[in-house]
Amino acid sequence: MDPQQMNGGRFLLLVTGASRGFGRCVAEEFVRQVAPANPVDLVLVARSETGLESATDSVNEIAASINAPGGVVVRKEPLDLGDLDHLEANLEGVFSRIDPTRYSRAVLVNNAGSLGHIGVASALPSLAAFRSEMDFNITSALWLSSRFSAVFGAKRPNLSSGNSVEGTLGESGADVDKNGATTAATASADTVHDVSNNIVVNISSLAALQPFETWGGYSSGKAARDMFHRVLATEQASIGGLKVLNYAPGPMNTDMSRDIRSAEQFEEDLQSGKLIDARVSAEKCVRLALHGTFASGSHVDFFDED
Amino acid sequence: MDPQQMNGGRFLLLVTGASRGFGRCVAEEFVRQVAPANPVDLVLVARSETGLESATDSVNEIAASINAPGGVVVRKEPLDLGDLDHLEANLEGVFSRIDPTRYSRAVLVNNAGSLGHIGVASALPSLAAFRSEMDFNITSALWLSSRFSAVFGAKRPNLSSGNSVEGTLGESGADVDKNGATTAATASADTVHDVSNNIVVNISSLAALQPFETWGGYSSGKAARDMFHRVLATEQASIGGLKVLNYAPGPMNTDMSRDIRSAEQFEEDLQSGKLIDARVSAEKCVRLALHGTFASGSHVDFFDED
Repeated sequence: MDPQQMNGGRFLLLVTGASRGFGRCVAEEFVRQVAPANPVDLVLVARSETGLESATDSVNEIAASINAPGGVVVRKEPLDLGDLDHLEANLEGVFSRIDPTRYSRAVLVNNAGSLGHIGVASALPSLAAFRSEMDFNITSALWLSSRFSAVFGAKRPNLSSGNSVEGTLGESGADVDKNGATTAATASADTVHDVSNNIVVNISSLAALQPFETWGGYSSGKAARDMFHRVLATEQASIGGLKVLNYAPGPMNTDMSRDIRSAEQFEEDLQSGKLIDARVSAEKCVRLALHGTFASGSHVDFFDED
Repeated sequence: MDPQQMNGGRFLLLVTGASRGFGRCVAEEFVRQVAPANPVDLVLVARSETGLESATDSVNEIAASINAPGGVVVRKEPLDLGDLDHLEANLEGVFSRIDPTRYSRAVLVNNAGSLGHIGVASALPSLAAFRSEMDFNITSALWLSSRFSAVFGAKRPNLSSGNSVEGTLGESGADVDKNGATTAATASADTVHDVSNNIVVNISSLAALQPFETWGGYSSGKAARDMFHRVLATEQASIGGLKVLNYAPGPMNTDMSRDIRSAEQFEEDLQSGKLIDARVSAEKCVRLALHGTFASGSHVDFFDED
């Protein structure tokens, strides 16, 4: 659905890793694309309070420059998504401050992630460091999408237990329902407006699809995230629930790419156009999400044709 | 390489989840296929001491029935792979009791895993339960393959740091080396015999490749494991190191499949041939691993043709 068609309805964007890099560009781009026609609430999640201040300032500047008629409201949510001991309570806090009934459309951009250890799979860092990487890049990311989907997706109480599982899946002794699940599915009445307007965007990577040497931990995390969101898409699609996009933003000029390059290499790649402007990739990501020109659950790369 | 060619050389099998189900069948099948020509050491890892006793008894019965000329030695390693607070120390203990220089061929079957929560992705269990599932099915499994590869794979000290990373990967601002890594790779002298005989088998699932409703957590775990082992395969292949197999054993008649069926359904599926005998799948898994008729890093399903 085109944002124009939603004229007047309030939009929500919840984005993680919003203090810098791609996450921040997504927040800015969302305002550029939505605020000319609709009021926008942004919920920006990141560890750094000062980073969130800075991101808020630039979002507000953009809002002022386009004279957003419906207004742009930013809420800063400084918290550490990698702190699993407090993640459940922290996210309940975030969602308790969101009234889902206010929104015509809600979008999650599940962007936060870390580079982690780069090195051969036979020489990981300590288990503690590796576990932190998996906690942050996998467990916390999946948990957030699950919680967002619980609030903004279609509900399927009949499928919430394992009792409905039947059928045959060719794997380690386990089975799964391919048909029973769909037939048992019924959208409950307590969904927010038209939940099919709501979107979960998982920030993915080419590394989710292809193995690259020395990227074992990072690639595994991205593969797990892609698969979880593919399952979510399949479940929601069968009852007209939210749509899901796995978006790989391409090699960008962010702090993450800077972290793995020498200063000279970064400049060289920047000059030679090997690095994409993060804003350009964010523009495509937000456009895809808002206009829905993707198959729910699919993996879309920046370099893929629209 | 055919086991016959290794006549006389000692074989090692390290298998997790060895007390029952597919893991136990793999241990038994390994003895059947290898012990007629080669001495075999089995290291059986599982939580249950009594389960390990029982598995040991049946392995010893098989060894006696084929009059294994070189002998079959079993070491029971009772430990909880899901206990990440002690995993590092527990596995160091296991490896400290293995002398890698004794073996002509070493095989890891990274089998342990849990079904976890079956239900829609928008309704996960508590974060604590979900985290335990990810800890066990992803973090501990990847850590074990990493440690095994450190002991039995080719070493690449030049690649152990992130300094060698360059090149371009189309993803979230990050880059990866596709060429530099390979050219920098050199097998060091401290490898065990011919490391190219050594094998890591990751027990995978069709769920690693395809999204099935209500299987979000399990599928994500299997996708992460497949990808990590694909990366490991790519790294080791470039220097003639160990081979890696992602093996999906098909829907078997194990406790795991029993857990997700009613008693009647289990019997019906068993009678109608929807469930594969775990021993039959284990036979194929061990044969593939020993004879090496697979592309390293590939995903092989029980139903795939040999």
